[in-house]
Amino acid sequence: MYQVHLDISKSYDIYIGSGLIEKAGAFLSGIFPRCRIAVITDSNVYPLYAQKLGKSLTESGYEYDTFVFPAGEQSKNLSTLSDILEFMADHQLTRSDFVIALGGGVTGDMAGFAAAVYARGIPFVQIPTTLLAAVDSSVGGKTAVDLKAGKNLAGAFHQPSLVLTDTDVIADLPAHLLSEGAAEVIKYGVLEDTELFDWMCSETWKEKLSEIILRSVKIKQKFVSEDEFDTGVRKLLNLGHTFGHAIEKCADFSLSHGFGVAIGMAIAAGAAGKKDVCAKIIQANTACHLPFSCDFSPAELAHAALTDKKRSGDYVDLVMPHKIGHCVLEKTPVEYLSSLFEKGLAAIKELT
Amino acid sequence: MYQVHLDISKSYDIYIGSGLIEKAGAFLSGIFPRCRIAVITDSNVYPLYAQKLGKSLTESGYEYDTFVFPAGEQSKNLSTLSDILEFMADHQLTRSDFVIALGGGVTGDMAGFAAAVYARGIPFVQIPTTLLAAVDSSVGGKTAVDLKAGKNLAGAFHQPSLVLTDTDVIADLPAHLLSEGAAEVIKYGVLEDTELFDWMCSETWKEKLSEIILRSVKIKQKFVSEDEFDTGVRKLLNLGHTFGHAIEKCADFSLSHGFGVAIGMAIAAGAAGKKDVCAKIIQANTACHLPFSCDFSPAELAHAALTDKKRSGDYVDLVMPHKIGHCVLEKTPVEYLSSLFEKGLAAIKELT
Repeated sequence: MYQVHLDISKSYDIYIGSGLIEKAGAFLSGIFPRCRIAVITDSNVYPLYAQKLGKSLTESGYEYDTFVFPAGEQSKNLSTLSDILEFMADHQLTRSDFVIALGGGVTGDMAGFAAAVYARGIPFVQIPTTLLAAVDSSVGGKTAVDLKAGKNLAGAFHQPSLVLTDTDVIADLPAHLLSEGAAEVIKYGVLEDTELFDWMCSETWKEKLSEIILRSVKIKQKFVSEDEFDTGVRKLLNLGHTFGHAIEKCADFSLSHGFGVAIGMAIAAGAAGKKDVCAKIIQANTACHLPFSCDFSPAELAHAALTDKKRSGDYVDLVMPHKIGHCVLEKTPVEYLSSLFEKGLAAIKELT
Repeated sequence: MYQVHLDISKSYDIYIGSGLIEKAGAFLSGIFPRCRIAVITDSNVYPLYAQKLGKSLTESGYEYDTFVFPAGEQSKNLSTLSDILEFMADHQLTRSDFVIALGGGVTGDMAGFAAAVYARGIPFVQIPTTLLAAVDSSVGGKTAVDLKAGKNLAGAFHQPSLVLTDTDVIADLPAHLLSEGAAEVIKYGVLEDTELFDWMCSETWKEKLSEIILRSVKIKQKFVSEDEFDTGVRKLLNLGHTFGHAIEKCADFSLSHGFGVAIGMAIAAGAAGKKDVCAKIIQANTACHLPFSCDFSPAELAHAALTDKKRSGDYVDLVMPHKIGHCVLEKTPVEYLSSLFEKGLAAIKELT
């Protein structure tokens, strides 16, 4: 088992290892006295792991109630959030109680946001069940729901009290969910770690799952510790995200987040004029069964990117990969977006 | 004009004086560069002050859009919040832009909460138009909406960047809205300031409006500075609130907040066994045209109080006035609530 300690506005631990769901109650009892828990999970995860988690909680003397919502990004809205909050109130949760997010990014983002605002903030614990959530959304305290106008437009910074990543659960994931998470791992490689990047260029990366999660979490931890509220270097973690979000939006969110980021990174490298980096990203994406291009026009994509919350006035902060292991934040006038999409997509086309 | 400076997680100023709405643009331009503003207001305030504010904003070079919701506590819910957030997204507000809450407590709480969660937090400015908002909700950064299960159950701590209290607006309020605010002023007197309390025992208090607002804000500021996130002494500000919220809830929120608090303070003094204090509170309430009792049964009231978010597990933190100018926080088992309501209401009955 690996342990990563975060010491930011709140100090907490991330554990990565086998069988952690069965041991959840024991981990929690080291932090929280016996109290009431709201377990938030979705319709996919509930039949797989809710019972196992519940048994562990009961054995450690906790009382819990489970809220299950229909799996999928379309649930991540203010209507479901409202249902979760009313559920917590109906079960009379107080500021001494806490929330467990059992699931992927949608569950973690939404349960975390519910915990952030219920009674103006109660603690929450992340048990990520996807690789993407394990390496990305469960670390760093960003919580949110989508608005009609765009993804993650309403949310809060709310750090979890504990993160338990059960590697047995991650190893059991269907291939497309592993690919989805691999996109963020590739991102960490492009940002900071050439060795991690090289691992992802071969199909054998799945054999190193625990180390890959550990390395990814440590890189994310480094950025979060330096810039908890996302006003400086943490923006580098948005590599591929401005371009990727635009693609997801144009695809009406039928394309998953990881796939959007995967394409977004290739576009960013192409737009930065770094064809060698673009080629390497295409290679890693291919090894991880990820896409590297899309059919939307640069104008459509630029329009979609304009409502991105990362835009500050007339400029957008773009992360440009200059080489594997080194990226640069560039404040870019919004009117350049269309030509950057064009340049990026053209580079990808030329290379493939 | 008075100025009060707060230096907590965020440093900001509160100005109290005549004609501040006309000067809003000038005040804002000292803090914010030219940017986009979402003005949030209700259907009562909009026809009175929105145009005057808008003129001032335009003269200072700001662009603004105004969201108007139906006045009243029944609008303070997740549905209106959702509409406000979508409105902000539709007008492409970014993290460099900000929100102005122009109105009373409902407007301030909801616009503040919208600012707290939009793009995970953008700045907001309070322009309170009621005495209650001027002395209470506009100071201290508590924002919220109601859930079906209870008042203010979903919210955030989000400090404003500036508070502008225009005393011309407050002086023009209808009598019942002045009474509503007077209840909180009486509360500050009971907590900390015998002179302020004595002022409120005479009908002439309205002649000292600016000083009363200043004294109240300074007392609130003191508590907020010592305990920004409401885990310690700030709980004293809940004097009359646990009892008062229960009354408001039993009355299905047809009773306004200030009136609930006014009765709640009298009940608290009675429940504390301090008949002299209870008598003085009844005197002040009467001078300010506020009620001091209610017809709900102790059992009904206790049940309503149980879903109060201030309850922590099996105990509730109650603020008990021991004399005017001195109150004590008492951690009380929830099963005592019914008998405390009974004792408080009986004391009031005996005195009147």
